[in-house]
Amino acid sequence: MDKKQIKIIKDIETIHAEIAALKKNGAKIGFVPTMGFLHKGHTSLIERSVKECDVTAVSIFINPIQFGRGEDFDSYPRNTQRDKSIISKTGARYVFMPEQKTMYGDDFKTSVSVKKLGKIMCGRHRPGHFDGVCTVVLKLFNIISPDIAYFGRKDFQQLFIIKKMVEDLNINIKIKDCPTVREEDGLAMSSRNRYLSEIERKNAPILFKTLQTAAAMTERKNISIKRIKSISLKMLNCNPCVKSVDYFDFRNCETLDEIKSLGNYFKGDARSGILIAAAIRIGSTRLIDNVVI
Amino acid sequence: MDKKQIKIIKDIETIHAEIAALKKNGAKIGFVPTMGFLHKGHTSLIERSVKECDVTAVSIFINPIQFGRGEDFDSYPRNTQRDKSIISKTGARYVFMPEQKTMYGDDFKTSVSVKKLGKIMCGRHRPGHFDGVCTVVLKLFNIISPDIAYFGRKDFQQLFIIKKMVEDLNINIKIKDCPTVREEDGLAMSSRNRYLSEIERKNAPILFKTLQTAAAMTERKNISIKRIKSISLKMLNCNPCVKSVDYFDFRNCETLDEIKSLGNYFKGDARSGILIAAAIRIGSTRLIDNVVI
Repeated sequence: MDKKQIKIIKDIETIHAEIAALKKNGAKIGFVPTMGFLHKGHTSLIERSVKECDVTAVSIFINPIQFGRGEDFDSYPRNTQRDKSIISKTGARYVFMPEQKTMYGDDFKTSVSVKKLGKIMCGRHRPGHFDGVCTVVLKLFNIISPDIAYFGRKDFQQLFIIKKMVEDLNINIKIKDCPTVREEDGLAMSSRNRYLSEIERKNAPILFKTLQTAAAMTERKNISIKRIKSISLKMLNCNPCVKSVDYFDFRNCETLDEIKSLGNYFKGDARSGILIAAAIRIGSTRLIDNVVI
Repeated sequence: MDKKQIKIIKDIETIHAEIAALKKNGAKIGFVPTMGFLHKGHTSLIERSVKECDVTAVSIFINPIQFGRGEDFDSYPRNTQRDKSIISKTGARYVFMPEQKTMYGDDFKTSVSVKKLGKIMCGRHRPGHFDGVCTVVLKLFNIISPDIAYFGRKDFQQLFIIKKMVEDLNINIKIKDCPTVREEDGLAMSSRNRYLSEIERKNAPILFKTLQTAAAMTERKNISIKRIKSISLKMLNCNPCVKSVDYFDFRNCETLDEIKSLGNYFKGDARSGILIAAAIRIGSTRLIDNVVI
């Protein structure tokens, strides 16, 4: 297949019909939803889909309803030409790029929510964010009807919530999660890294470094979560570029329930099943990251 | 086809796989979701589906999450043997009868809402009811993946909300609505009619009679909605079996917006586009009905 032959489609009926025809002929469809401004995290998802599926569709849509007031919807980085060029090199066949009015008519009313799962961690600081994510992802799932959809582990809560929605609503799509892709200094790839000034960029790896240090501390005997958290917050707050810490949470990675004590997380001779997830502001840029032990 | 060959399936994977195989061979699938205790309203939907589709599936599931506290979930009439026998005579092929725990595991969290559309009319008196309806209908749609689903017009608001959800979430299913089926004296068929005592049953047609009278009054020149509503409420409240009127609403049948003035509803030389919908209690039984002009 000529890798450069990507089809750009803006219209729901067209992409739905094209993919339905391919599915009828037995093609396995892979799907990677994105908000564009692609980085190596995205391409790792697309490349995995290309490898595992017969046809891969990528969507580029900056979903307004997952941004709150005062958030960065208007300034969210956009570069469609560059995105198309990146996708054309992956082997993906379709790029679905709907207009906002195509996705949300004037009279749009429906909302999908995973209730309290969407109100903890990032959801506590971004009210309505995950309802917006669930709603757009369900729409995209219905438009594309893929067999498999790919999500990155950097957005662990998003991935968790989408898996829950798929399970609860009996959606017949397999969700696969892929490792976080990092810059050489450990910073998780994110379209929002573009916002960082030079000095902020240099300091941004403090987030992953702190998460790794916290993870290492959980192996110490008799250390409490309270103590690890206090050390971690100190590490972050001592960094001159860290403006604030939204949260630094220890959670059961299978339920997202908060972990109060490490005592229950020994499996064999090491701890496991623990998610440490955090969101901080570097200057005015909000960054998230996590490690799973 | 032998009309008695219905397949009773309780398990999600089995019905999904069987129908997916039929669809792959090009069969058009019709679906009628019900809560059982079937009456001629249901059979009219099933028969229409049998006529229009290659294979018809009927579900029987009393959906707990659409009942509020103090509502009639526990006492809702059930008669599975009779239901199966009724369905076997229609030509439908599948009856999907999941257990409650099959539909809602312990950790169920997702909810679908059409926001304010679910908070007016019946929704005002049954908080959360339509979120429960949307959630279960979306689950059933994903399990069965029909081409067409059939709903009755008696539950006009439900039908309207499901159409909106299907449109908003890009669900690839055609929703067809079918006329309300009535007893000879005009009472709309409903499983809840079974609750009525003999004297209540005799008085129950007052609901449809009042709706018809109200509809006829809209043709009078210069009459106001306020006046029609006042006469209608008097008619209802004068009936000894009417315990209360939840609502008696005039609404635009294409938006469900409340109509304050009849002035805008002349099309040609008669009014049109008006829904008059009401819910009343006959004794302790809640009945709904509507007319569309």
